[in-house]
Amino acid sequence: MLGPGNGVAQDDPPLALVIHGGAGTIRKSDLSSEMEAKYREKVQEALDGGYEILSNGGTALDAVETSIRIMEDSELFNAGKGAVFTAEGKNELDAAIMDGSTLQAGAVAGVTTIKNPISAARAVMEQTTHVLLSGLGADAFAESIGLEIVDPKYFFTQRRWDSLQRAKSREQKAEAHVSSVEHDPYARAMGTVGALALDKEGRLAAATSTGGMTNKRWGRIGDAPLIGAGTYANSKCAVSATGAGEYFIRNVVAHDICARAEYSEISVSEAAETVIFTVLEPDIGGVITLDNQGNPSMPFNTEGMYRGYLLGNGESVVEIYKD
Amino acid sequence: MLGPGNGVAQDDPPLALVIHGGAGTIRKSDLSSEMEAKYREKVQEALDGGYEILSNGGTALDAVETSIRIMEDSELFNAGKGAVFTAEGKNELDAAIMDGSTLQAGAVAGVTTIKNPISAARAVMEQTTHVLLSGLGADAFAESIGLEIVDPKYFFTQRRWDSLQRAKSREQKAEAHVSSVEHDPYARAMGTVGALALDKEGRLAAATSTGGMTNKRWGRIGDAPLIGAGTYANSKCAVSATGAGEYFIRNVVAHDICARAEYSEISVSEAAETVIFTVLEPDIGGVITLDNQGNPSMPFNTEGMYRGYLLGNGESVVEIYKD
Repeated sequence: MLGPGNGVAQDDPPLALVIHGGAGTIRKSDLSSEMEAKYREKVQEALDGGYEILSNGGTALDAVETSIRIMEDSELFNAGKGAVFTAEGKNELDAAIMDGSTLQAGAVAGVTTIKNPISAARAVMEQTTHVLLSGLGADAFAESIGLEIVDPKYFFTQRRWDSLQRAKSREQKAEAHVSSVEHDPYARAMGTVGALALDKEGRLAAATSTGGMTNKRWGRIGDAPLIGAGTYANSKCAVSATGAGEYFIRNVVAHDICARAEYSEISVSEAAETVIFTVLEPDIGGVITLDNQGNPSMPFNTEGMYRGYLLGNGESVVEIYKD
Repeated sequence: MLGPGNGVAQDDPPLALVIHGGAGTIRKSDLSSEMEAKYREKVQEALDGGYEILSNGGTALDAVETSIRIMEDSELFNAGKGAVFTAEGKNELDAAIMDGSTLQAGAVAGVTTIKNPISAARAVMEQTTHVLLSGLGADAFAESIGLEIVDPKYFFTQRRWDSLQRAKSREQKAEAHVSSVEHDPYARAMGTVGALALDKEGRLAAATSTGGMTNKRWGRIGDAPLIGAGTYANSKCAVSATGAGEYFIRNVVAHDICARAEYSEISVSEAAETVIFTVLEPDIGGVITLDNQGNPSMPFNTEGMYRGYLLGNGESVVEIYKD
């Protein structure tokens, strides 16, 4: 693990990296100590990987992309390799990235062959005039610019396949065509990953990547790739969300937190707590936030959220449960 | 044309319906008087159709859906029947609707066989737990619930086909792979349609429908179907946007207008003018807005915007140009 503050003069703004690995019904009683250790280790690895970029003078954008790629390459999270399955037994991935210093943003939705969707999102931002590309078109774009393409089988994991079978079985029992999945918190988008960073130039960036919701249908797109809903950054505030995506879309959560902070002149963390604990219903999800002074917050209204931060003052936290 | 206020007691909140038919380089010198008359007539027809719902005591949701369907069924606008072509010579349509009184919302992106995408968006809102469905999945959903499905040929219009050929020819000349279209204002998403309504119960609704950008690639999704970007409504404020969609996404324009009004305690129309004239660069597009007292605004920073409103106090406006 890296020491904080490496290579950064004292007068520079404080470096900061904040990460989540999904919110949901995560209870200590449900998670073996072996699995808990794996999650803690991988969140720490993602923090260290991103922070190394920052401490070497790199950009917030590079830091969040690096952290997200580490989590996308792990089976533990519902993003990249560990993405959940759709009702048709496929993996359709979404990701977004935003540069708070320029308001440039890029996102992909419903991609099936891109190993690291977050890098595709970044390429959309940097190599096209568009923000959001979707489906086969987005896959084709990624291939055309040389990103790593994988066979869709790459995203098969037994654990997520079993989750789909359980979701389908619950659905049959409920005889409810659409709503059974979402009302079962276990089937929710637990495991979406997000990262926020503040670099030595004071630039904020936000990134989110997900496989969406187990058993999703009809090309459903959640909040993660939607700028303002699950992902948002400007010069003062960065947010990445995780949870039942539809609620985050309807409440434009990521942008609303930054707007409340700016227009109501409250802190970003106060705005985040207001939205998570008073605007949203309980058991919906959580967010990570970061302001341009390097202050993180990680509020959630579920049982748990994989989360952590690493700050320039040496503070380092990795947590899972509520208490 | 209907008289305003029909069937509504004086103590009820003022009814209001506001419409746009797209913003862009619309100059009096470019539009024949015959075409101008057609546009004015169709905007008036959409206003009257939606207002009739309101004056009969119907909901804001029904009113905006009705107005949008009238414009989707016309060749004049870049939505439904008159949608522009993608680079591959297809028509991929986007639409969103939002009920400000409940924050429920529905949207479809990249659909190719749904005659009236706005009605599919409403079905997503009312018949699923999702907000945004995309691509073939969204088409399949619409068919499964019995919405009117058409052969993709239905969306062929010579005028839009010619626009695509011009865009491709400009692109070849520019030898610029991606950016040539968007930097040519003529090729922009001129003709997106939007509608806002306030009903006798004081409920606001917003709806937007579009064919997107001529010559768009890679499953590009614009701002129209993204809640908070091109479409948003809450209990106090409703917004529908039109223009170069990527700018509206990055600035989360529709939600930002409502957030500025609420948190900075300024009027919705002041907030809209701030965003259109000071946050966005010139020549990007415009919005229509409506507050819960029935006050409309229609600011735009392009040469023109097809637009109009019909209010409970009898005020009726249909305009096209800047002055």
